Amino acid sequence: MENEFAKRLPFWDKLSESEKEFVNTYSNVVEYEKGRIIHSDDDNCLGMIMMLEGEIRTYILSPEGREITLFRLYKNDCCVMSASCVIKEINFSSQMVAEKDCKILVISSGIFSRLAEKNIYVKCYMYEVLANKFSSVMITMQQILFKGFDKRLAEFLVAETDRTGTNVIKMTHQQIAQHTNSAREVVARMLKKFNDEGIVEVHRGVIKIIDKDKLENI
Amino acid sequence: MENEFAKRLPFWDKLSESEKEFVNTYSNVVEYEKGRIIHSDDDNCLGMIMMLEGEIRTYILSPEGREITLFRLYKNDCCVMSASCVIKEINFSSQMVAEKDCKILVISSGIFSRLAEKNIYVKCYMYEVLANKFSSVMITMQQILFKGFDKRLAEFLVAETDRTGTNVIKMTHQQIAQHTNSAREVVARMLKKFNDEGIVEVHRGVIKIIDKDKLENI
Repeated sequence: MENEFAKRLPFWDKLSESEKEFVNTYSNVVEYEKGRIIHSDDDNCLGMIMMLEGEIRTYILSPEGREITLFRLYKNDCCVMSASCVIKEINFSSQMVAEKDCKILVISSGIFSRLAEKNIYVKCYMYEVLANKFSSVMITMQQILFKGFDKRLAEFLVAETDRTGTNVIKMTHQQIAQHTNSAREVVARMLKKFNDEGIVEVHRGVIKIIDKDKLENI
Repeated sequence: MENEFAKRLPFWDKLSESEKEFVNTYSNVVEYEKGRIIHSDDDNCLGMIMMLEGEIRTYILSPEGREITLFRLYKNDCCVMSASCVIKEINFSSQMVAEKDCKILVISSGIFSRLAEKNIYVKCYMYEVLANKFSSVMITMQQILFKGFDKRLAEFLVAETDRTGTNVIKMTHQQIAQHTNSAREVVARMLKKFNDEGIVEVHRGVIKIIDKDKLENI
């Protein structure tokens, strides 16, 4: 049976004829209504998925039951977190929910795992997709950790310009770190962000406030 | 020039003769004293590393300058986070410090990147190593998020057995979640942890306290 969608898989051209047949036979197009849980700890895991239509959100739960979004999947995105039960590198739990009505191509976990064992390109793709998600997740984690620090730094800069009556702060990152109970690297990174957003201009030992209104509104 | 250590690289057998020569020529053994920063945002990135001796700790900084350890590297471990500048999937910043005197094999970023482009096995290995770290990092993140929930749940269970005068709590995970201001999945996971540690026994709709002392000490 021909599966027109399987041809869109990123590793399709790297499959042998018999592997192509294998994927054609064992992949399925599945539809999920908006709101349906597609993958969670409770279930057996689904397999590798490729989005044909719709949107999926992947999240973990905080102890308060708050959903912490890790990343979203859109048309043509592939994901292997939904095949977590066959990937030894994933030993944490996440949930996936259909944010819109979804149509997805599913290669079941067992089939995908056999394919990845036999074909280095499939294996490589599997890890590549994971590495990609790694970065999204690190950024989420840093956002959680750094929540509030932008505010703290902005408050300090505003207070300092008020205190000195100028829009130029002559302090090193290290000194600002001491004032804001932080670390030099953290201050440097946040100042760079402010700099990129046109709020301040950062020079060696000098910070010039460009947009004080914006700074006050952070 | 022969480099006796390069042969230990996990992908060595998958290199062509000319690639082997290339690696031999362009890899170096570098020693770092305890306490030295091996990789950080400030520097150009080092390259792929393989531990020959010692211990490396990889961490990120919290806004308070607290070091949040992501993972450690020991003898024979390889890492590619130190080659972050040539891996497009890594766009977050981390630090690496020598926790003990270290001897490491370094394949510089440019060389490693050319190798990964040409050789699918090197590329696959690079992503595999990242995927591995992904899991460590997710676990760290969940530990940060869930810090304190084990205590909250333990307190509730102790209070509940005191209140009812039995060591059996007849409640669903959902009900406990409501009492502890949490979510069913979170309660289920923490109870499973307690179960695995021999503190409680979890059955459908019933939690039996096995080791109340341990529960009180959490």
